[in-house]
Amino acid sequence: MKEIDISRAICEEYNRKLLEHLENDVVIVGAGPAGLAAGYYLAKAGRKTTIVEKKLSIGGGIWGGAAGYNVIAVEDSDILDEVGVSTEKKGDLYVADAIEFATALAYKAKKAGAAIFNLTEAEDIIFKRDRVEGVVVNNTAIRMAALHVDPFCISSKYLIDATGHPAEIVAMLKKRKPELYPKGLGESFMDVETSEAGVVEKTGEVYPGLYVSGMSVCAVYNLPRMGPIFGGMLKSGKKVAELINEKI
Amino acid sequence: MKEIDISRAICEEYNRKLLEHLENDVVIVGAGPAGLAAGYYLAKAGRKTTIVEKKLSIGGGIWGGAAGYNVIAVEDSDILDEVGVSTEKKGDLYVADAIEFATALAYKAKKAGAAIFNLTEAEDIIFKRDRVEGVVVNNTAIRMAALHVDPFCISSKYLIDATGHPAEIVAMLKKRKPELYPKGLGESFMDVETSEAGVVEKTGEVYPGLYVSGMSVCAVYNLPRMGPIFGGMLKSGKKVAELINEKI
Amino acid sequence: MKEIDISRAICEEYNRKLLEHLENDVVIVGAGPAGLAAGYYLAKAGRKTTIVEKKLSIGGGIWGGAAGYNVIAVEDSDILDEVGVSTEKKGDLYVADAIEFATALAYKAKKAGAAIFNLTEAEDIIFKRDRVEGVVVNNTAIRMAALHVDPFCISSKYLIDATGHPAEIVAMLKKRKPELYPKGLGESFMDVETSEAGVVEKTGEVYPGLYVSGMSVCAVYNLPRMGPIFGGMLKSGKKVAELINEKI
Amino acid sequence: MKEIDISRAICEEYNRKLLEHLENDVVIVGAGPAGLAAGYYLAKAGRKTTIVEKKLSIGGGIWGGAAGYNVIAVEDSDILDEVGVSTEKKGDLYVADAIEFATALAYKAKKAGAAIFNLTEAEDIIFKRDRVEGVVVNNTAIRMAALHVDPFCISSKYLIDATGHPAEIVAMLKKRKPELYPKGLGESFMDVETSEAGVVEKTGEVYPGLYVSGMSVCAVYNLPRMGPIFGGMLKSGKKVAELINEKI
Amino acid sequence: MKEIDISRAICEEYNRKLLEHLENDVVIVGAGPAGLAAGYYLAKAGRKTTIVEKKLSIGGGIWGGAAGYNVIAVEDSDILDEVGVSTEKKGDLYVADAIEFATALAYKAKKAGAAIFNLTEAEDIIFKRDRVEGVVVNNTAIRMAALHVDPFCISSKYLIDATGHPAEIVAMLKKRKPELYPKGLGESFMDVETSEAGVVEKTGEVYPGLYVSGMSVCAVYNLPRMGPIFGGMLKSGKKVAELINEKI
Amino acid sequence: MKEIDISRAICEEYNRKLLEHLENDVVIVGAGPAGLAAGYYLAKAGRKTTIVEKKLSIGGGIWGGAAGYNVIAVEDSDILDEVGVSTEKKGDLYVADAIEFATALAYKAKKAGAAIFNLTEAEDIIFKRDRVEGVVVNNTAIRMAALHVDPFCISSKYLIDATGHPAEIVAMLKKRKPELYPKGLGESFMDVETSEAGVVEKTGEVYPGLYVSGMSVCAVYNLPRMGPIFGGMLKSGKKVAELINEKI
Amino acid sequence: MKEIDISRAICEEYNRKLLEHLENDVVIVGAGPAGLAAGYYLAKAGRKTTIVEKKLSIGGGIWGGAAGYNVIAVEDSDILDEVGVSTEKKGDLYVADAIEFATALAYKAKKAGAAIFNLTEAEDIIFKRDRVEGVVVNNTAIRMAALHVDPFCISSKYLIDATGHPAEIVAMLKKRKPELYPKGLGESFMDVETSEAGVVEKTGEVYPGLYVSGMSVCAVYNLPRMGPIFGGMLKSGKKVAELINEKI
Amino acid sequence: MKEIDISRAICEEYNRKLLEHLENDVVIVGAGPAGLAAGYYLAKAGRKTTIVEKKLSIGGGIWGGAAGYNVIAVEDSDILDEVGVSTEKKGDLYVADAIEFATALAYKAKKAGAAIFNLTEAEDIIFKRDRVEGVVVNNTAIRMAALHVDPFCISSKYLIDATGHPAEIVAMLKKRKPELYPKGLGESFMDVETSEAGVVEKTGEVYPGLYVSGMSVCAVYNLPRMGPIFGGMLKSGKKVAELINEKI
Repeated sequence: MKEIDISRAICEEYNRKLLEHLENDVVIVGAGPAGLAAGYYLAKAGRKTTIVEKKLSIGGGIWGGAAGYNVIAVEDSDILDEVGVSTEKKGDLYVADAIEFATALAYKAKKAGAAIFNLTEAEDIIFKRDRVEGVVVNNTAIRMAALHVDPFCISSKYLIDATGHPAEIVAMLKKRKPELYPKGLGESFMDVETSEAGVVEKTGEVYPGLYVSGMSVCAVYNLPRMGPIFGGMLKSGKKVAELINEKI
Repeated sequence: MKEIDISRAICEEYNRKLLEHLENDVVIVGAGPAGLAAGYYLAKAGRKTTIVEKKLSIGGGIWGGAAGYNVIAVEDSDILDEVGVSTEKKGDLYVADAIEFATALAYKAKKAGAAIFNLTEAEDIIFKRDRVEGVVVNNTAIRMAALHVDPFCISSKYLIDATGHPAEIVAMLKKRKPELYPKGLGESFMDVETSEAGVVEKTGEVYPGLYVSGMSVCAVYNLPRMGPIFGGMLKSGKKVAELINEKI
Repeated sequence: MKEIDISRAICEEYNRKLLEHLENDVVIVGAGPAGLAAGYYLAKAGRKTTIVEKKLSIGGGIWGGAAGYNVIAVEDSDILDEVGVSTEKKGDLYVADAIEFATALAYKAKKAGAAIFNLTEAEDIIFKRDRVEGVVVNNTAIRMAALHVDPFCISSKYLIDATGHPAEIVAMLKKRKPELYPKGLGESFMDVETSEAGVVEKTGEVYPGLYVSGMSVCAVYNLPRMGPIFGGMLKSGKKVAELINEKI
Repeated sequence: MKEIDISRAICEEYNRKLLEHLENDVVIVGAGPAGLAAGYYLAKAGRKTTIVEKKLSIGGGIWGGAAGYNVIAVEDSDILDEVGVSTEKKGDLYVADAIEFATALAYKAKKAGAAIFNLTEAEDIIFKRDRVEGVVVNNTAIRMAALHVDPFCISSKYLIDATGHPAEIVAMLKKRKPELYPKGLGESFMDVETSEAGVVEKTGEVYPGLYVSGMSVCAVYNLPRMGPIFGGMLKSGKKVAELINEKI
Repeated sequence: MKEIDISRAICEEYNRKLLEHLENDVVIVGAGPAGLAAGYYLAKAGRKTTIVEKKLSIGGGIWGGAAGYNVIAVEDSDILDEVGVSTEKKGDLYVADAIEFATALAYKAKKAGAAIFNLTEAEDIIFKRDRVEGVVVNNTAIRMAALHVDPFCISSKYLIDATGHPAEIVAMLKKRKPELYPKGLGESFMDVETSEAGVVEKTGEVYPGLYVSGMSVCAVYNLPRMGPIFGGMLKSGKKVAELINEKI
Repeated sequence: MKEIDISRAICEEYNRKLLEHLENDVVIVGAGPAGLAAGYYLAKAGRKTTIVEKKLSIGGGIWGGAAGYNVIAVEDSDILDEVGVSTEKKGDLYVADAIEFATALAYKAKKAGAAIFNLTEAEDIIFKRDRVEGVVVNNTAIRMAALHVDPFCISSKYLIDATGHPAEIVAMLKKRKPELYPKGLGESFMDVETSEAGVVEKTGEVYPGLYVSGMSVCAVYNLPRMGPIFGGMLKSGKKVAELINEKI
Repeated sequence: MKEIDISRAICEEYNRKLLEHLENDVVIVGAGPAGLAAGYYLAKAGRKTTIVEKKLSIGGGIWGGAAGYNVIAVEDSDILDEVGVSTEKKGDLYVADAIEFATALAYKAKKAGAAIFNLTEAEDIIFKRDRVEGVVVNNTAIRMAALHVDPFCISSKYLIDATGHPAEIVAMLKKRKPELYPKGLGESFMDVETSEAGVVEKTGEVYPGLYVSGMSVCAVYNLPRMGPIFGGMLKSGKKVAELINEKI
Repeated sequence: MKEIDISRAICEEYNRKLLEHLENDVVIVGAGPAGLAAGYYLAKAGRKTTIVEKKLSIGGGIWGGAAGYNVIAVEDSDILDEVGVSTEKKGDLYVADAIEFATALAYKAKKAGAAIFNLTEAEDIIFKRDRVEGVVVNNTAIRMAALHVDPFCISSKYLIDATGHPAEIVAMLKKRKPELYPKGLGESFMDVETSEAGVVEKTGEVYPGLYVSGMSVCAVYNLPRMGPIFGGMLKSGKKVAELINEKI
């Protein structure tokens, strides 16, 4: 076995995957809880699904639990049961290990057929005939290194902003169309009950071709924030998958 | 449901876990491929096993594949099959998705019973009667923030240095006992074949109470490095688990 | 004595304290002169009082006196006498050692029964039915390290913003409700006489459940700033304690 | 009252204090647990004592307890009782609040008569006729700002290195006289029992005119480190005070 | 001679100077060309004059000439002749060495009687009865080190903003009174001829007790900028001195 | 040969070139694809042409192709043929090596007679009688080092903003004349077809004496962005050269 | 034309090029003057040649001439004439434009058939049977972003270290085989005449499979440095090409 | 007057000065107290003298006095009297204003005929036939910006290292000839009396063509350091001038 055989095998496989996924049914930006859940349900339903994640690792804000206490909470354990995460009941809540939760969710999304490109950062939107048609991405390392290098493009029938608090894709929309969000983006003060319900209810399409899921929903509709409770995130990911599945 | 109920549930669960794991059969430092494999096989064998990982996410150098092409290679697919990672044969090699590999391995280690503390950084060794008796750890964020705060202690019957290239635990040993490593630590030039064999062969105890596994083995024995081929890492993790299992 | 006995004793005691103080009569954000004085008088009056301070050390702007000359001045020595700080009369002023002042004040607040959580940073407000119901906090080191980790929650019947110049809690309120502070936050030019009187007079409730004390008062009401004279700060801390005591 | 009256009062008082303390019986570098304890006992015994501390706040590594859990442990409560710190017995240990401990200790040292100059960094040693005769200091902010500005001098009959882990003063000695410390400076692995005893035993003079106390002792004699247990630190501070008292 | 004799002599002399200059006829912020020229002419006329300069060295933008070519130009050589700077005629211009210019100007201002406090940064304005009554200053190193330390105060009958492009003092005024400068602060595009005339013409009082001189004039009146030609700067410094001299 | 002979030869030649090019027909800011193409065609037509480029190397965003894949695409190969760049047809596109493209273009522009000053950064505009008359520049290293040093001036009959996305020269215009660009500067979402046509069509004069070319056109007219396809850039550079050639 | 067609064309072309060049006759590390000259002559002679360059742009230290004066000098103009760079005679020297020189050299190397991979950083050596067999590389952006990602491999019959002053490849050799370079690496003081001759003379093989060229030669043999005179660099590049050509 | 006339006048004058000073009797590196004094006495004696200073401003460590108290001390006032600095007697010392001292000294050196190039950093030594023949310099901003740009050369009959504590020129010598300084470079502990005498006594030639003056002398001979007393510095500068004057 030669060193360059390993290099060749990896380059070929990666490029096959990349070229195959330049065109998609659904592209999800952000591999946090909502994005991974959406990816899991969409891939399971047979949609050609790509998740782009700017960090090297997936999981978003799951890993650290609360202030580094690596435990998370949910109100219902249904989706956790489905993806194989053990929970323990504490009063009205279920708690689970944050690391088990992050890895199980990503593992199941991948197994269901979703392609995940990490270290890949959304830089802009492809926009044609007043519709979102895909996402412009770049290598995150290039942006971190502050190098001046052009991006490349990934097309989608439906694009999901699952970037969490900053609602990065909607923020790009707002930058050029500020009139759409006169009150600005950003979640409101913490109020778990209001937020857990609202984030699921408001999950949906915000512009032709563009959906929001997870904390991005709170940012777009100025709903309260919620902290390390992930039930609403998962349900929002599941709901956005169902909404898009119906459309395709 | 009140906000502080979530906080209370998470704090209680985390502290239960932390207090339970202050005393262990085995502590593994580093949740990369070798550390996770070791944790998986040790926990499966019923050992009380704790993995401490300094980053928020687990996986070490797996996520980026080669130069960000998120694909990895192995020579045999046995361990990947066991932990549920799909592979594809390419010539003499098997390739797999890096994200699937990282998440499956951690998920299975956790399910087998290993406790994983992320954002937890080894700062020193507990050392008594010329034997390594555990590890001194701190919150990684505290070190990143350059704050002057004391660490706490986790004891082990056996400590595994699975920190990869820097062999961080052995490096602490060397700092006070430089005579042990007159040629210094650090892997040698790249030579995959030599290294894949050597890393498994040399896996073992380097000081009473302290074992090395994975790239730390190369650093300690100045073996060649190997790049994004992970077969040796996994076998080394499995071997260190077997060696310790025999001893306990 | 084993190393892990020390770790266990500290973890248990800290978590007992933390869980006990998730729910409070009063939470004070900021352990500078006003916050510590408020904490002292509230705890002395028997209120369950928690002070959260983002730095490792308490004292806020006290330590450096003026430009590093570690001496502070007050117009009356009453409160300094009460907390045991030696003063010396210089013309119309009393001067005292800055370090003695900072440590005496915190020591007495703690002895009176206030719990102080340092390295704990307010990140947001808990807000329900148009009332401030507590504070969302995180480990300061996590924010300094720019890690993406969720916070936890501490509830209060009354929350005091004693964060000084930036009026951090009121600034969070203003971010979502800019109409409340059309002229913005921020103290005005220096004018000691006007400010020393005004800061005490304006100390009080600024939103249901939220009080301001100390330099935050100047920031909220655009009063002049005052420099290293601390009489107004202490009186404001005492006054906010009295106002809340009457209400509970 | 005019603004410049406050400025004048503070400048005059600070300069009086500074000029008065250019010449001392004892200068202690570092206002951590050992330095503050030494300062307390020396001042109480009537020695003209100055503590210089490079940070704005005193307390060294006390504030954060273990990994930010702001609780500390001791084996005996005698000195804590003397300086007025409440303790609680837990098994063989006593635990105390870290903030109460830091502030009580500094407050009592100051009240006993020690002068404390914070934001004042030791830069070098005054050295005459093969004896340490004082310390060369500068404004810490100037060093932090990387400005090229000369220091000033403070003389001592006896200088105490209470700078903790780095043993900063002894390190200056070693830089020009490396033959004194052929094995280098630096504490050894963690081993609480050995260290708690050794740090007190080895407290003493290391060069004519220069003493070590607290963690500096461990660094100088390569003793084990000990983590957030502070009994040895306090006893070492008390012992160095007694040794010097006998000499003067 | 002992080391502390040098420390004592310097501390005493500095504090004598500082206390003497807490109260002044004129305080000039900025020791660039305009500020030094103003200081020279005011001190020569017998006014008690203090210049505060945030950097360690005086001279502002003089040292580097144009793009580091350390030569400067003026249209008339009168003021340069007066302060003893050699010039050479080149066409319609006179050129001079930038280093000779900076040092001669500061040397002559000091010799004429102006006190210069370098490493002293204006942080705010003293403001009473709608009049500027002095300046709030701090040690620049403290700001560079991002430490939280209070400032001290220096009073003036007249305060001159000679801070150059940023017009720092006027910017403080504008921050609280934005209505005064609806078009904002900041010089306009480069146009030397227009600017050299305008900067002198517009030099004068901008608020009761506050004058502008030099590039601050361009910033306040949105005049063009001018580059490394210093005739207007010097004339503006001379003019502001004359205007204030007439008033006192 | 002596060392200073080399220094002398280089200094003399550089200064000859610099002094010769202080006055120009056309100054182009930015040596990316549009700026170099404009420089090539203008110099070929005999205009005295200077290109200033802030980086050490020319080429702007060409070097990295897409996400570091150093290949670029065009729709027509005409201009690439003219400057000697090999292309390969792929479907409707031509692809070329990014490094060959960058170097050929700059080499041909220089050979045609354009002077290129790298490490030279535009800092402002020379503006007289409501017309842009040149550019104010400085050494980029001085700005990177955050030193306070004045710039120097280069005059032009026509100035071209070829600075790409930020449209740096137009941004300077907008800063003082915000009413000219009420919708702000900045390209819109990606839409290659619309953009490739629009960028050429809108190339032209935006203010007396100031032209835009390349991505600056998109920024000024809020046209879509386009990624690593360079046909429009080259055509825009050629067009701006033709427009100015007709005027001179 | 669709956006993803451009992405697809670029990805396919880049990967074709990359896979084709995993195996080479010669790999040159560093696209400065010596590396580009070597690449030009090797490719012209028909060798399969790959140049890897860690920066985005090629040219190394050419662009800035001397201290940013973008002019370079040579003693003979032969090679410059061959690659099409205009020169002007000044005494015993020829001077040329630095930008013309850098771009012409790279353009000609590429046209002659050398493949250039920029943003590609050598991280280690492939080493088998005591011979250098290739280079281990990574994406420079990944290293700049301090991400933990494995490299890939490029094999060579002959590897040339043309990395300039740091002699990066030889430094890797020295790190594991310090006995080879007992006097260390690094050029000596400046002495142009000695160096210009020595750098050509010493160009050659330093270890089986590894050659040095350009400033790396000076570093390896501790020859004097030479500054912005490039004759020796070019001749050294030509010579290393001839030496390898003879061997293949 | 046109903007480019100013640019032209400055460029021409600077280049005239630079070309004139490429060849010198004496080059002094460092414009601190010793370097400026040496420059003053050498220029006064008619030697062609160039001072290169890496910072924008001259003065070295003079500006900040002691810890920012901008006052300096000397034992004799002779040289201060000669350069026109006012002093005041305090016990056995004379104190003077630091700013007056720095500016007077540079002003007089310049007036005496020394050329001063600021923002010019020594990067290496010109070394021929085992003799120091000059200095290799670069634009400091280029180094601060971490750009890869070659230096240029300035020749000297005698080179003076007046760089202060780091003895930068001697350190370059030591880097390639470590055997010359087996005990390393660096001043010893503070001891004013010993140092003030020793620094003058040891001032002299350290290698053919290279002299040391000021704090560099202490670094080279491991003499004690001395703090903000400048008598020895000035005498050392005067002595080195006399030694070289005798030789030329």
